Amino acid sequence: VTASPGSSIGRADATAALQPVALRDKLARFADHWAPRVVAELNDYQVKLVKLQGDFVWHRHDDTDEMFLVIEGEMEIAFRDATVRLREGDLFVVPRGREHITRAKRECHALIIEPRGVANTGDAGGRLTAPQDAWV
Amino acid sequence: VTASPGSSIGRADATAALQPVALRDKLARFADHWAPRVVAELNDYQVKLVKLQGDFVWHRHDDTDEMFLVIEGEMEIAFRDATVRLREGDLFVVPRGREHITRAKRECHALIIEPRGVANTGDAGGRLTAPQDAWV
Repeated sequence: VTASPGSSIGRADATAALQPVALRDKLARFADHWAPRVVAELNDYQVKLVKLQGDFVWHRHDDTDEMFLVIEGEMEIAFRDATVRLREGDLFVVPRGREHITRAKRECHALIIEPRGVANTGDAGGRLTAPQDAWV
Repeated sequence: VTASPGSSIGRADATAALQPVALRDKLARFADHWAPRVVAELNDYQVKLVKLQGDFVWHRHDDTDEMFLVIEGEMEIAFRDATVRLREGDLFVVPRGREHITRAKRECHALIIEPRGVANTGDAGGRLTAPQDAWV
C-alpha cells in the first residue's frame, strides 16, 4: 500500500496509514526539550508530542486554545495569578489569549493539540521557537 | 474564584477552570457504553471520553476526521478493507468520509476529539446515537 501521488505532504493517506500511532514508541525517537513533534493531523489541527524540562517562556496564543495531556511525569501550566499542576493522565486546555508558561522540574512528556501553524512560543518568539511540521 | 456572569454555557471560564481534567477520575463517573461524555473544549472541538464494549455500528463522518486515543484496554477500528488495532497509549485518526466501525471484545476506555456537534453514529443514526453535550 503506497500513498497516492496526489496526497498532500504531511497528510496521512486514507489507505496507507492504517497503523495506530503508539505514543510511547514515538516518544522514544527524540530527546530534545521544547521541540514538539507532530504525530497526527485531525482536520486542520495537529497532534504533537513534546518533552518538557525546566521553564519555557511566558507567552500567549491570541487566536486559539491549546490542549495539553500529560503522558508521563508531571508539569505545571502557570498563569500570572494561578498555577495548574498536571500529572500523568491529566488534561488541560489553555484558553486563548491567556498568558502562560509551562514548567517541569523533571522531564515530562505531553501531548499537545492545536491548529496547524501555531508557534509554540506564541506572541513571545525567541530562541525556543520550534520549527513547524517536524514529524516523528 | 467564580465564573463571570457573561461566560457561555459549557465553556470553561478562564479564571474558574484552573483544575486539570483527570481522565481516570472522569471515567469512574459513568458506566454506560457508547455514550461519550464531554470533558473539555478546545476552540470548536470537544474532548470526550467513551467506554466501548462489543460492536458499534458502521458509519462515516463526511465532514470531519475523528481522533481516538486508547486510555485503557484495547479496541479495533475496522474499515471495509482493513482493521486498525489500538492498545493503551495508541492513537488513530479516522479520515473523513471513511466508513468504519469501532469494536472492543472487553471494555475499553478511549478519548475522542472531534468538532462540536458531530453525531457518534455519523450518517447511520439509529438507537446508538448519543445525546450531544453530555458532560462529565
